[in-house]
Amino acid sequence: MKRYETFELTFSGPEPEGSQALADIQAKFSCGDETWNVKGFYDGNGTYKVRFLPQKEGHYTWAVSGVVNASGEEDCTVSETAHGMVQAEGTHFVYQDGTKYLPFGTTIYALAHQSEELIEQTLNTLSTAPFNKVRHCIFPKHYDYNHNEPQFYPFEKDADGKWDVHRPCFAYWAHFEKILNRLGEMGIETDLILFHPYDRWGFSKMSMEENKVYLDYALRRLAAIPYIWWSMANEYDLMFHLSENDWFEIEDTIVKNDPYGHLLSNHNCIKFYDFSRPAITHVCVQTIAFYKAAEWMDRYQKPVVYDEFCYEGDIQHEWGNISAFEMTNRFWKACSVGAYATHGETFFSEDEILWWARGGVLKGESPKRIAFLKDLLYSLPSPVEPWNEPRKLEPGQEEEPVNAAENPFIHLFNSVTDENAECIKMKGDNFNGHCGDDAFLKYFSGHQPSISSINLPENASYRIDVIDVWNMTRETLIEKASGYTDMKLPGKEGIAVLAVKITE
Amino acid sequence: MKRYETFELTFSGPEPEGSQALADIQAKFSCGDETWNVKGFYDGNGTYKVRFLPQKEGHYTWAVSGVVNASGEEDCTVSETAHGMVQAEGTHFVYQDGTKYLPFGTTIYALAHQSEELIEQTLNTLSTAPFNKVRHCIFPKHYDYNHNEPQFYPFEKDADGKWDVHRPCFAYWAHFEKILNRLGEMGIETDLILFHPYDRWGFSKMSMEENKVYLDYALRRLAAIPYIWWSMANEYDLMFHLSENDWFEIEDTIVKNDPYGHLLSNHNCIKFYDFSRPAITHVCVQTIAFYKAAEWMDRYQKPVVYDEFCYEGDIQHEWGNISAFEMTNRFWKACSVGAYATHGETFFSEDEILWWARGGVLKGESPKRIAFLKDLLYSLPSPVEPWNEPRKLEPGQEEEPVNAAENPFIHLFNSVTDENAECIKMKGDNFNGHCGDDAFLKYFSGHQPSISSINLPENASYRIDVIDVWNMTRETLIEKASGYTDMKLPGKEGIAVLAVKITE
Repeated sequence: MKRYETFELTFSGPEPEGSQALADIQAKFSCGDETWNVKGFYDGNGTYKVRFLPQKEGHYTWAVSGVVNASGEEDCTVSETAHGMVQAEGTHFVYQDGTKYLPFGTTIYALAHQSEELIEQTLNTLSTAPFNKVRHCIFPKHYDYNHNEPQFYPFEKDADGKWDVHRPCFAYWAHFEKILNRLGEMGIETDLILFHPYDRWGFSKMSMEENKVYLDYALRRLAAIPYIWWSMANEYDLMFHLSENDWFEIEDTIVKNDPYGHLLSNHNCIKFYDFSRPAITHVCVQTIAFYKAAEWMDRYQKPVVYDEFCYEGDIQHEWGNISAFEMTNRFWKACSVGAYATHGETFFSEDEILWWARGGVLKGESPKRIAFLKDLLYSLPSPVEPWNEPRKLEPGQEEEPVNAAENPFIHLFNSVTDENAECIKMKGDNFNGHCGDDAFLKYFSGHQPSISSINLPENASYRIDVIDVWNMTRETLIEKASGYTDMKLPGKEGIAVLAVKITE
Repeated sequence: MKRYETFELTFSGPEPEGSQALADIQAKFSCGDETWNVKGFYDGNGTYKVRFLPQKEGHYTWAVSGVVNASGEEDCTVSETAHGMVQAEGTHFVYQDGTKYLPFGTTIYALAHQSEELIEQTLNTLSTAPFNKVRHCIFPKHYDYNHNEPQFYPFEKDADGKWDVHRPCFAYWAHFEKILNRLGEMGIETDLILFHPYDRWGFSKMSMEENKVYLDYALRRLAAIPYIWWSMANEYDLMFHLSENDWFEIEDTIVKNDPYGHLLSNHNCIKFYDFSRPAITHVCVQTIAFYKAAEWMDRYQKPVVYDEFCYEGDIQHEWGNISAFEMTNRFWKACSVGAYATHGETFFSEDEILWWARGGVLKGESPKRIAFLKDLLYSLPSPVEPWNEPRKLEPGQEEEPVNAAENPFIHLFNSVTDENAECIKMKGDNFNGHCGDDAFLKYFSGHQPSISSINLPENASYRIDVIDVWNMTRETLIEKASGYTDMKLPGKEGIAVLAVKITE
């Protein structure tokens, strides 16, 4: 048993008499004063398994009960490679062992529902891509460019040809888990989409009772895999037969069946999920409103992930035909204030193999720019926080008051409708971030100043580099700067400046 | 006297005893059953003038009373060149004589407050530029790059050095009117900014009583000039000492003193003016929310003009450093749904002469693209209306219901907060317009589809052209198309398609 690595016990037993999904098998793991109660699962062919994800090192005792009764002891040691689950910490993420994790996601919705050959090609592509999170689905996807039939489905059908959630397709789950684990071993988290509306088989139309049986079984199998984030759905709000309360019930079911507390959120088409709910660990949004990032980080005190904001590509749908520059630009907008972004790619292809849903090879020009950004952010001493750059104060001038009574701008802003406010805020999009007083980042996005300034702390010295996000260059603009500093810039789009503290 | 041309009567009289601005002189013009009451004005040096803008041809009698008493008759004939004022008609504009007018504005805030030489250069530049509307100010401007002192001010100062609104500077007004008329003769409307906050002289801080005296005098002089739109202010909401009711009073003062009904609106920084007010003829907004155009046209049933949405340039301010492509793109976004846009240019210059405030020469790359767009829109048979392109219906399929009870998408949209709604709407920006069934326009803006479609009427034939808005090319894509039509497109940003009905 290794800390943060899936521990698995296997038993033989009689075939379950009732539901194969809800087999009567549970286990208790104890270490010192702490106890974890987990459910086991039936894996077909008279085989039962119990999985456990040890959260700390030490001496464990375990006891399995139900259709199988067994007990034992294990010494759990620290793994040399496992970092644990990714968890939220403030408005950022971090592995459980404290290792830095900055999400740079991509999207391959039906990754697991392709031919073995295509899956291998996808994993091979990912092995050299910058992405460390993949949004993909348990259920197969039906949509434009998604007409192929998967090899397996999560359940077997009953005699009437209806999906029977009580009879899992064991081959499917083994296949799916293998992909999760292979991704995980490559350092890639699975942002696991539990439900979605793009369906021709009926998985999106199951009853709440069926949904809960499915979740129960899925979490018995998957919760002990450290590389998983629960994404309740892709575009949950388009599953029109489910009410808001149904979603809260799904959320509760996940929480109740997850002994470890994986990350949990829910992805919208139109209506944002309620990210203030305590069990929701991060803000997961589909929107292009990057100017909202700092506001949402402040409101929810949780990480903000722009998990969908159009894909690099050239298909007919407006969500799937932005340029490589624009994809890069949107990553920079999010990341420059300390939010995060998720890539996707949809170049038209006669063979219908588009990365966003089916994987294969990456054809776009944004991934290498995303890699450049990722390397840069990983090189910083800490995650980025939004930076409200102070104004230059003339001698004797004081900071603007920040309350509405004294500051007429704030008063004015408070007096407008929400519609009006958004129409104005989107213009004033500053993408400025900082790492304490160690580094300050300004991203000018679609603006192209030839002159600008940065108002750095007076009491330290900084080297200011100018970064061309498209050409992936980083050149020193000013060797040593303090306080308010004028800068001459290239006067083109896609420029950032990064001021890093000089430590002597 | 010519219809739609300023008619002016000049009289000698004693210097006004009290206010020179509110001199006691008025006139009545009658033609058939109709009568117009107008105020005259004192023009200094014992000269009084009465100006009148005849709205129709015919035989007029006039009578002047007050410090001057006189009467006379005039025959008013139709001018060969004058088209009358521009007025709102539905969500578009048109000259009073029915001549087409599609506004393509630019911004030269302090046009009139420059040296004669610079003003001449500006007018010369405008003579070959595509712009037919200029936003500029009565009061001089103080701001970055605006430090020069004007030759004249609208008023004289009193003995205490305070501006005396009762003592107009006649040379200033003659100078200003000359510019208005020269622009007008070039086919360029003046979107006349009556107030603005960027001031070091005190004009922005006058009392409401002073404001009303100033407006009274300004309208006595200017209302008979046909080329004027009243813009109550530039960024009215930053004049913090004026309340909303003060602005309503300013609006009422303008309406009361304008015998002809010039166009009237008000330009915001943060808070949109209330465009539902009956006297407001059009929506004038500063925002980059182009996706709102169709919604606002529908809400207000008035023309929508994006009068400020950042300027082409490279200065330090984010409102003044977008690219030529982006300026062009924003014009296309507005115009493709039948809204309108206003250009401005702010390239850094050591001599502080930036087009947006001071004029001079145009340095940017957008004006020629705006000219291309203007020519194209003028070539269409009518102004553009937003086009809600119908879905392709499969055999037997029916149109989606458009009420919330039956259409879950509409129901969903109605269930979200305004903040949420704006964050979603901005992604779904379709810039589709049509001219009845004569022409259909789709602008893909920052999207780069290589495949797309257009759902044309079944009962007519169309030639489909593909337009590259940056390279200013227009090439026939499909010679003859009807109904739902697939299109192969260049797969780059800045592409439009225009389908024009073939009339045989």
